[in-house]
Amino acid sequence: MERFDGAADFRGGQFVLIDGVTIRPARPGDGSALQELVKSLAISHGYEKEFFGTPELYETALFCPNPVIGAFLAEVSGTPAGCAIWHRSFSTFRGKEIIYLEDLSVLPDFRRRGIAKALLKAVAQLAAARDIPEVFWLMMDWNDGARALYESVGAEIEGGNSFCRLSGDALARLAQ
Amino acid sequence: MERFDGAADFRGGQFVLIDGVTIRPARPGDGSALQELVKSLAISHGYEKEFFGTPELYETALFCPNPVIGAFLAEVSGTPAGCAIWHRSFSTFRGKEIIYLEDLSVLPDFRRRGIAKALLKAVAQLAAARDIPEVFWLMMDWNDGARALYESVGAEIEGGNSFCRLSGDALARLAQ
Repeated sequence: MERFDGAADFRGGQFVLIDGVTIRPARPGDGSALQELVKSLAISHGYEKEFFGTPELYETALFCPNPVIGAFLAEVSGTPAGCAIWHRSFSTFRGKEIIYLEDLSVLPDFRRRGIAKALLKAVAQLAAARDIPEVFWLMMDWNDGARALYESVGAEIEGGNSFCRLSGDALARLAQ
Repeated sequence: MERFDGAADFRGGQFVLIDGVTIRPARPGDGSALQELVKSLAISHGYEKEFFGTPELYETALFCPNPVIGAFLAEVSGTPAGCAIWHRSFSTFRGKEIIYLEDLSVLPDFRRRGIAKALLKAVAQLAAARDIPEVFWLMMDWNDGARALYESVGAEIEGGNSFCRLSGDALARLAQ
């Protein structure tokens, strides 16, 4: 299988690549595949203990009325190989809705074939179709492979940011 | 006016503080105040050139059907002093909807009175009321004042993150 390099197209809601790789919007029944893919990402980033996703939770979030998230699934000869999960976001500097890319995951066996770039392309096409001016995401600074991909597609990358989180007891205490 | 330190309460959709400071959900007509507050934040973070928010854009986003964002406004004796603008988000590790805090802004003249903490508290109470397990946001690493506040309320802070953004020509090119 050769590296995909830009020949993809989005037709009828299906993003068809060469060499048996297909990228398509997630549909009911994909919950287990998404769980496997996100869990793989959590493990590779050192967050296995924080992982609680289930197939049911993903399907509920994706296919409820007014969902806030969406997902693309990459399959190689019908086997789940990667996914991009995004959610609606908003830039107060622009005053417009934008897209936040929450997860971009490719299973280890399927890496170095251009699948991550093709998933990013699917998200970019979705943004273009919805007249959304920006897609943003976070990257851990040590992730050189991801950085190379993001730079190759022209993403601006700005270091010096911390991720802040309130949850559990601290969130409950502040809410009192 | 003394520093607010935890005596706030949320009654009837209005978060009433001592000393003439009121925190309440944004309502139609607040667009100009929100613009001033977000623009102040953009300037203080060095992003004046990236700022394009208008009162109309904020009001459209806040009061459309199925809005993705919400806002709290802090007023001191009726004058806008600060705001928190949040949006619906989703944690794939949890499989649940969470809240992303996009902006927390207090105008320079109104700082050091606990207004930022009270705005954070309003967001935490919203999360508790909606059974949302996590609120997250980004902080620029140089912002020691913000860091002190976030640590004081028990937020976990994780450095080593980069913010990545695709927009303009790069986004259009990838979508082709």
